[in-house]
Amino acid sequence: MARLPARSLWKAVSGRGGRLLRVGAASKDRVARPITSTTTNGSQNQIVAPKGGTAEDVLEQGARKLLEYVRGASVGSQPVVRLKSPGELKKAFRATGCGLEITGTEEVAGVDELLAAVECVLENSVNTAHPLFFNQLYSRGDPLSILADWMIAATNTNVHTYEVAPVYTVMEAEVLRRCARLIGFEGGYDGLLVPGGSIANLYGMLLARHRADPEWKTRGMNGGPNLVAFTSDHSHYSYKKSAMTMGLGTDNLITIPTDRDTGAMVTEKLEEAILKSKAEGKVPFFVGATAGTTVRGGYDKFDEIADVCSEHGVWMHIDAAWGGGALLSRRQRHTMHGASRTDSYAWNPHKMLGATMQCSIFLTRHKDTLHECNGTSAEYLFQPDKLYTEYDVGDKTIQCGRRADAAKLWLMWKAYGDVGLEKRVDHLYALADHIQERIESSGGKFALTFPRSCTNVGFWYVPRALRPFDFSTADKHALDRIAKVAPYIKNRMQQTGDALIGFQPLDGKPNFFRIVFANADNVTFDDVDQMLERMEAIGEEGFPSKA
Amino acid sequence: MARLPARSLWKAVSGRGGRLLRVGAASKDRVARPITSTTTNGSQNQIVAPKGGTAEDVLEQGARKLLEYVRGASVGSQPVVRLKSPGELKKAFRATGCGLEITGTEEVAGVDELLAAVECVLENSVNTAHPLFFNQLYSRGDPLSILADWMIAATNTNVHTYEVAPVYTVMEAEVLRRCARLIGFEGGYDGLLVPGGSIANLYGMLLARHRADPEWKTRGMNGGPNLVAFTSDHSHYSYKKSAMTMGLGTDNLITIPTDRDTGAMVTEKLEEAILKSKAEGKVPFFVGATAGTTVRGGYDKFDEIADVCSEHGVWMHIDAAWGGGALLSRRQRHTMHGASRTDSYAWNPHKMLGATMQCSIFLTRHKDTLHECNGTSAEYLFQPDKLYTEYDVGDKTIQCGRRADAAKLWLMWKAYGDVGLEKRVDHLYALADHIQERIESSGGKFALTFPRSCTNVGFWYVPRALRPFDFSTADKHALDRIAKVAPYIKNRMQQTGDALIGFQPLDGKPNFFRIVFANADNVTFDDVDQMLERMEAIGEEGFPSKA
Repeated sequence: MARLPARSLWKAVSGRGGRLLRVGAASKDRVARPITSTTTNGSQNQIVAPKGGTAEDVLEQGARKLLEYVRGASVGSQPVVRLKSPGELKKAFRATGCGLEITGTEEVAGVDELLAAVECVLENSVNTAHPLFFNQLYSRGDPLSILADWMIAATNTNVHTYEVAPVYTVMEAEVLRRCARLIGFEGGYDGLLVPGGSIANLYGMLLARHRADPEWKTRGMNGGPNLVAFTSDHSHYSYKKSAMTMGLGTDNLITIPTDRDTGAMVTEKLEEAILKSKAEGKVPFFVGATAGTTVRGGYDKFDEIADVCSEHGVWMHIDAAWGGGALLSRRQRHTMHGASRTDSYAWNPHKMLGATMQCSIFLTRHKDTLHECNGTSAEYLFQPDKLYTEYDVGDKTIQCGRRADAAKLWLMWKAYGDVGLEKRVDHLYALADHIQERIESSGGKFALTFPRSCTNVGFWYVPRALRPFDFSTADKHALDRIAKVAPYIKNRMQQTGDALIGFQPLDGKPNFFRIVFANADNVTFDDVDQMLERMEAIGEEGFPSKA
Repeated sequence: MARLPARSLWKAVSGRGGRLLRVGAASKDRVARPITSTTTNGSQNQIVAPKGGTAEDVLEQGARKLLEYVRGASVGSQPVVRLKSPGELKKAFRATGCGLEITGTEEVAGVDELLAAVECVLENSVNTAHPLFFNQLYSRGDPLSILADWMIAATNTNVHTYEVAPVYTVMEAEVLRRCARLIGFEGGYDGLLVPGGSIANLYGMLLARHRADPEWKTRGMNGGPNLVAFTSDHSHYSYKKSAMTMGLGTDNLITIPTDRDTGAMVTEKLEEAILKSKAEGKVPFFVGATAGTTVRGGYDKFDEIADVCSEHGVWMHIDAAWGGGALLSRRQRHTMHGASRTDSYAWNPHKMLGATMQCSIFLTRHKDTLHECNGTSAEYLFQPDKLYTEYDVGDKTIQCGRRADAAKLWLMWKAYGDVGLEKRVDHLYALADHIQERIESSGGKFALTFPRSCTNVGFWYVPRALRPFDFSTADKHALDRIAKVAPYIKNRMQQTGDALIGFQPLDGKPNFFRIVFANADNVTFDDVDQMLERMEAIGEEGFPSKA
């Protein structure tokens, strides 16, 4: 083989737009050819391309549609959903020439069909940016987060080693550093971006187990101490799923009652349960607290819980997936009092802050435990002779591949700063204050279901015949009737594409609407008023006999 | 409150571009106002916007840079990496006016700074589309997959209920159906897209545990049968991590030796180990087979393993995260013989097919077990009175939020069809054939490390003094010396941005290069030749005394 000069053929010559010019290669000799592909543009060398164009062209044209969608999706003049059955959806895709079914070779879609299919996705997806999308704890993706998400896809790499993700591993470290400061972890910390709050809660339980029973890693749960965990009856179901996944078993996840007024775990009951478990020879190892419960937005009393955990040597975790945004608001921060004492912490900026799904942060104030707990030191990947291995975070995770989700929060934080993010959080609370006031002054047409503590608002629409409605004195007939109201009105508004709202029962209270304000940039007081008016209009029409 | 007409204010009037017009609302009366936001465009109502523009503008301008990057990134005339230390990276970002550090309000970045930061990310990220990016089992993201990824971010929703993700839940079902057919699951199946192959392997182990010990869900592992799992010594570390996570413990994950020639688990040893465990009173519950081992691409003998598993009532899982792509190629499919008999299966189209990270499929041929194993039926989310609840797949997962990753494979499959995807896979094998041939005809300059079975190629560059190199007869001095060659050459090429290649030891064989062909569209035979030439050129220069 010919011999190449073994020096760099690349020297950066900065130009406008960041393009680099190649210099240094002699021109005549084959030897001096730089290591370049024979590919001269991205598509010329493609082994396979879409019928009628290149994949890059489809991307470019599709991106235009997406940009238009993002600009338009936040506007209320589009319905929140064009409700179709699965069969109708399939029909709609068939009409684009790109059916939903993947049958194989016979129906390869060309450029135009692919683009029509993209439009069909956009047209039939739920417009989560709509002012009246109140179905979930997330809503509109911030356009800056969308940009970061697009960048993550375009650069397609894996945040497990510095070598393949130099920028993203450092960015993740910076985001975690800032979040640790936000919580108030002062004596050290460690963390990861993980795929969702449920997985973040699982990490908390795994670290807690590691502290309580270091042998678990080799021996397993079987034959170890009888570990027991504690969480409130309003906590997210992921504690239960995590207890299952990790082999703890749901019998060993003890449910502590929630105070019906505050929505907070009753700390005295927690301590009682811990003492009872100890008396039974069990080993309490984990308390799963919550900042912003899923349905009603309750905050546990972290300072009290920290006292109990500290007293009994139990790991404390806070699922702040939803309610952790309060830390960004000087007005609301008080609800997080004591959170800095927690051992571990889960927070989803893809909820209250508007980062795109998923952007979930796991943090612990114990340095090194993530690696001790989850590490296996796979020698093919995490080699000590690599460069900058302090950024090789992959061995701390229970995954291998991991997306660079930190970049989304990073870009938003750089653009908006603490003050901008605070404004966003404060507006969400202001919206909740507003609807609460409208409900309270509605003359009995609406009734609040529970006192508020976050931006979750639970309420009933009260049909004329049931007014005034008082849950504590209502008879079975009234409860049965009102239970059917929210599903009926919700379905009507879903059918017409006016709004998408959640409802559910809780603590024996029959089905009620749950409005959760998570969309700071698109929802106005007026939107909220109109929604109540529409609910009322549907209610005034009366209900079908079965309702 | 005023009364609104409770009929739909939305009627679809199809127009060019899919825009819908609003009709039916009377014009004069406040009552007749549709439920729209006061927002008239996406940014007007923003509570917070970047300094000097709107978030939408930044997205649009940033997207242009990304499109340019995608077109350019696949071209070899850009270095694979512009290697910087973390400190140098921070300096580069500081120069954009948008430093990597998030310090808070004092340094909010404006539109220009944000866009410069995006450029800085692109310029300093590893160009995984580069023809000589051979560091990992993934590479260039297919532009169609990038488009789907961008669409997922733009529509920002969660694939847990039909209600919030009507298109994506149906799309996921279609993708899973097609993949089940590809494997050959004929009597039924179930599945999920999950965040990475490691998590997919965890799912396999969870289902296996559920079958072996249905009580685990409530009781936990403690006090249950002494479960034991089996996998080969070449399998991915995620089996070990999953054994830890699920509470099995690594002592209960028994390692079966791999045949040094074929790279396949020695099935006789597997059966011996199962019998031995049974004799010790343990309960074998899971065999983790592999299609395409991480380092050398070995395929276990699935038909034999299925016989053993069937005989002993053990759950069989195949980690085909890397090697599952062979099913798409008529020429290579034989390596997957017997795979259709597996109980569960993991496959990452983000590896061999070029889907963007992450696109990971978990499949089982047992219908309903995912729900039985992982379900908790959270009443606030999975309500039986919702519409089309057969698509409410969220309760099958161990997550709550989940990205619509299926859309990426869907779009690629629709565009390329079976034949197109097959071409891609076949080209990867052709590249591997080519480099093998070059190595074998190199006159001893290079030496293969192991016989090939996938597109993984392991080889040494042999310094003059060590030629001819024969591992089986090499003395300690030679082994020590050759162990230093791959790291040295790899680092040199990384420093100059020419190539990014992995290396590692295996089975006592000292550090060797591992080239894995995963980039079908950008890598040519010529690229491969140039890489070998460059390696040789560096090697001919001689090594520093410590090497």
